[in-house]
Amino acid sequence: MEYPSKLIEDAVNEVSKLPGIGKKTALRLVLHLLKRDEDQTETLANALVAVRSRIQYCKKCHNLADSDLCTICASRKRDHSLICVVEDTRDVLAIENTAQFKGLYHVLGGIISPVEGVGPSDLQIESLLERLRSEEAGEVREIILALSPTMEGDTTAFYLQKRLKQFQLKISTIARGVPIGGDLEYADEVTLGRSILSRIMYE
Amino acid sequence: MEYPSKLIEDAVNEVSKLPGIGKKTALRLVLHLLKRDEDQTETLANALVAVRSRIQYCKKCHNLADSDLCTICASRKRDHSLICVVEDTRDVLAIENTAQFKGLYHVLGGIISPVEGVGPSDLQIESLLERLRSEEAGEVREIILALSPTMEGDTTAFYLQKRLKQFQLKISTIARGVPIGGDLEYADEVTLGRSILSRIMYE
Repeated sequence: MEYPSKLIEDAVNEVSKLPGIGKKTALRLVLHLLKRDEDQTETLANALVAVRSRIQYCKKCHNLADSDLCTICASRKRDHSLICVVEDTRDVLAIENTAQFKGLYHVLGGIISPVEGVGPSDLQIESLLERLRSEEAGEVREIILALSPTMEGDTTAFYLQKRLKQFQLKISTIARGVPIGGDLEYADEVTLGRSILSRIMYE
Repeated sequence: MEYPSKLIEDAVNEVSKLPGIGKKTALRLVLHLLKRDEDQTETLANALVAVRSRIQYCKKCHNLADSDLCTICASRKRDHSLICVVEDTRDVLAIENTAQFKGLYHVLGGIISPVEGVGPSDLQIESLLERLRSEEAGEVREIILALSPTMEGDTTAFYLQKRLKQFQLKISTIARGVPIGGDLEYADEVTLGRSILSRIMYE
């Protein structure tokens, strides 16, 4: 596409480098900026530069943080005896949104995937073991593995289980089954099969 | 949603102000920035600020431009006897992409819409008349109205026709009919009806 202005072309090219945004959407966004007040574009640009340059990773759980420790690890209200292991920050946000978990997290920063060349050493697994060995060790009671129910997630969970055995902790994984509100008829057979195998007894 | 960091929250809020981008998409984009090199975020931010602060409008056709005249109006290769009237810059780009039009443009900057409170005086209509009255006047041979085939587009076209009568120019509008590649069976009845009324004779 030919743009009427080099400035527009540059902006469209940069915006369309973002995932899921093509040239047409990028152009729509850039033209939208032109309609808004100039200071709004500056606020946007500053917020992007600030988040990129000043964000840190929590020294304890590797979640994103404003300072050395993330708000969750720093909080005294959280249950420090529970650690939920997740793939990335988005999973932390998803679990936080449920308001069902009051423990701490450990963000692996990825998942074991031989296809993509991601091995255990690329993930924050050693630092999890280190964390359990350190002064916290006595405090931690249970590790919950909250990884995606995929081949890679299961591989990672299996690997972690093996490595975590030495610590004599409870290790659990989030339940897999038919989604709540979903229609049984449309559940895929693997999920439905698993939900029968790991059925929950009425007490 | 609670964010692990104020920086992320600010960035997500700013990004989600863009049209068609919700909080979840904004978060995905911001997390993507964190994975890329820092200078890429700076390039993006600079491009956005630059396009917003330095873009101009072509003094002749009101298209977006880097300087006083847009590249199209400044070009000697274009046919200065044809002016295509469009709603906004995106329409210019769409028509340029067809490579079927070699004349100049006139960007109205909107369309007459009583519902949205946009009247003729809010658009670049006077400047079109001025353009035709000025030294160019003798040069221009035909005005093509390339407005959307909607109620507002037709209203604007009708209004322009009335105002342009004084100039003794050819005035045309882009053809409306069944889209090429479309299935006749699925064409809506209004379009199909119009395509019969304005049928084209084989010569």
